[in-house]
Amino acid sequence: MSQSQSVNRRIVLASRPHGAPTADNFRLEKQDIPTAQAGQLVLRTLFLSLDPYMRGRMSDAPSYAAPVQIGEVMTGGAVSQVVSSNSPEFKPGDRVVGSTGWQDYAVADAKAVKKLEGAALKHPSLALGVLGMPGFTAFMGLLDIGQPQAGETVVVAAATGPVGSLVGQIAKIKGCKVIGIAGGAEKCHYAVEHFGFDQCLDHRAADLDKRLKEACPDGIDVYFENVGGAVFDAVLPLLNTKARIPVCGLVSQYNATGLQEGQDRLSLLASTILRKRLRMQGFIIFDDYGHRYPEFAKQMSEWFEAGKVKFREDIVDGLENAPQAFIGLLEGKNFGKLVVKVSHENN
Amino acid sequence: MSQSQSVNRRIVLASRPHGAPTADNFRLEKQDIPTAQAGQLVLRTLFLSLDPYMRGRMSDAPSYAAPVQIGEVMTGGAVSQVVSSNSPEFKPGDRVVGSTGWQDYAVADAKAVKKLEGAALKHPSLALGVLGMPGFTAFMGLLDIGQPQAGETVVVAAATGPVGSLVGQIAKIKGCKVIGIAGGAEKCHYAVEHFGFDQCLDHRAADLDKRLKEACPDGIDVYFENVGGAVFDAVLPLLNTKARIPVCGLVSQYNATGLQEGQDRLSLLASTILRKRLRMQGFIIFDDYGHRYPEFAKQMSEWFEAGKVKFREDIVDGLENAPQAFIGLLEGKNFGKLVVKVSHENN
Repeated sequence: MSQSQSVNRRIVLASRPHGAPTADNFRLEKQDIPTAQAGQLVLRTLFLSLDPYMRGRMSDAPSYAAPVQIGEVMTGGAVSQVVSSNSPEFKPGDRVVGSTGWQDYAVADAKAVKKLEGAALKHPSLALGVLGMPGFTAFMGLLDIGQPQAGETVVVAAATGPVGSLVGQIAKIKGCKVIGIAGGAEKCHYAVEHFGFDQCLDHRAADLDKRLKEACPDGIDVYFENVGGAVFDAVLPLLNTKARIPVCGLVSQYNATGLQEGQDRLSLLASTILRKRLRMQGFIIFDDYGHRYPEFAKQMSEWFEAGKVKFREDIVDGLENAPQAFIGLLEGKNFGKLVVKVSHENN
Repeated sequence: MSQSQSVNRRIVLASRPHGAPTADNFRLEKQDIPTAQAGQLVLRTLFLSLDPYMRGRMSDAPSYAAPVQIGEVMTGGAVSQVVSSNSPEFKPGDRVVGSTGWQDYAVADAKAVKKLEGAALKHPSLALGVLGMPGFTAFMGLLDIGQPQAGETVVVAAATGPVGSLVGQIAKIKGCKVIGIAGGAEKCHYAVEHFGFDQCLDHRAADLDKRLKEACPDGIDVYFENVGGAVFDAVLPLLNTKARIPVCGLVSQYNATGLQEGQDRLSLLASTILRKRLRMQGFIIFDDYGHRYPEFAKQMSEWFEAGKVKFREDIVDGLENAPQAFIGLLEGKNFGKLVVKVSHENN
């Protein structure tokens, strides 16, 4: 089943997950291709980005963004081609990036999408990775909140994912020692060989605490938080005085259905923040840093074109496979930036 | 028993407390008055400051400062009078402030103490409160980390203590709505009437969560953390997006002997930091902001002399009563800045 020129396939939220999402939480629907009003574009999706934040939108718990409603199309960033345009700024064939959802076709306000530029013109899915939201997230979180200094030790998990791999590479550009954490020996090897991490530890192997301590003999100055859970537990005792913790995500917690029983470590975290004078700060990339996008785009393009930052993509074929790929993403099954190739034409 | 001109009474750490300190943890000793080397001063203590951070120094758990060793004099800031000087910069009779400990007499390097100035010349104990370390703590923590904006809601506990009362007063100067929290109706009344808080809630009365929510209909933008525990629990759900939490102290936790059993809310705190994009940052005043002391001294003196900031002292008479007063401090028994009047002469 692939993209048609007359039917819009879209994946809607069928029900809210309790714990890990299952296939039942999604439903593929067909409808007519939507039509555009003045100032709008009809877009045909080429690549759909799958990202951990989408798990939050499937729940109606309080969050920074409104949840997807039952029966609504799943939210998501995508690279598309303009099919028809009611805006003088776009013409058919233009390639754009925007938050157009899990569907073959979308109607979007011309103001809400951005033309691809630079390296993304040749390799459009980059606009969903290193040259897009994940790259921007790594760039601002690490540099603005993390403030890494040459010689410091930076730790980041999901080291072969789009955010983690860039955090590590930018930290190397800044002269830091970079320790990655990833799931499995293959990813760890790749983080060192391909992305230039100093070391990468397998969180699935035993004694993560001990191995992380050995890998960070001078402690940890910046921990870029994107997973939480056992990785954070291993990091916490190793944080140096005045360490910075940009909090970007907590993937390990997204499927949790409640708090774990045991000792309440909230006061332990607070006392560690006090005693070590930590700065722990959450951020939502476009809300907090949208005004600094041009600065990111310029610098990252320069690094990318100079070969200083590399990427890896994990491409899944076909919109209908998005739910299963997304379920796997939350389990760490992807290896690189997870992208769904929605269309086979004109890519 | 009072200060002698030939004997130095000093209070040493006799044993480390397990939980709340008791009288047995302290011992009053007598020794000869120490003598000064080149560049040093002999000082006679006039006022000794008692502050919650001293509880940390009694333990040998990891902390930002070395613990007091068993048998060593208890650490503490004090206002003293120069008895004899081996430094050209000081002469007998000068009044100075420095970290000279719980004792009648101390020897200090001339470089390690500071002459009183401004309003503290007339009222020396102010150098231990509004015009000293607690004032500096409130000033930098609130303004540099908290960054209060006019119209925002600021919450602070220990509202009649030296730090909390100044946090509230500075926040009022900045145009904020200020909600205090204190122990007992009398302190709450005082925070509103004397310090100008908009409201002050008694944390000993029932339903703090509910009352705090009613007092903060627009949520909380800055929570100056100096107590932790139940107050933080009430604050957490009310924090607004992009709220700031300077972490100055956790008095409610200082006597804790372990973590509480129950649900582990560490991940709840992390997810709240992410979702609300909070900034939570610890600080140790002189380590982090020592270089900005002149800025504080100038501004606070101006406010003080203009009558814009007020203070309340809780003066205890006699060095020998310092341990009991300190034990009470950790239970919230003081009402205002706790100071021990060590000498009756030349105050």
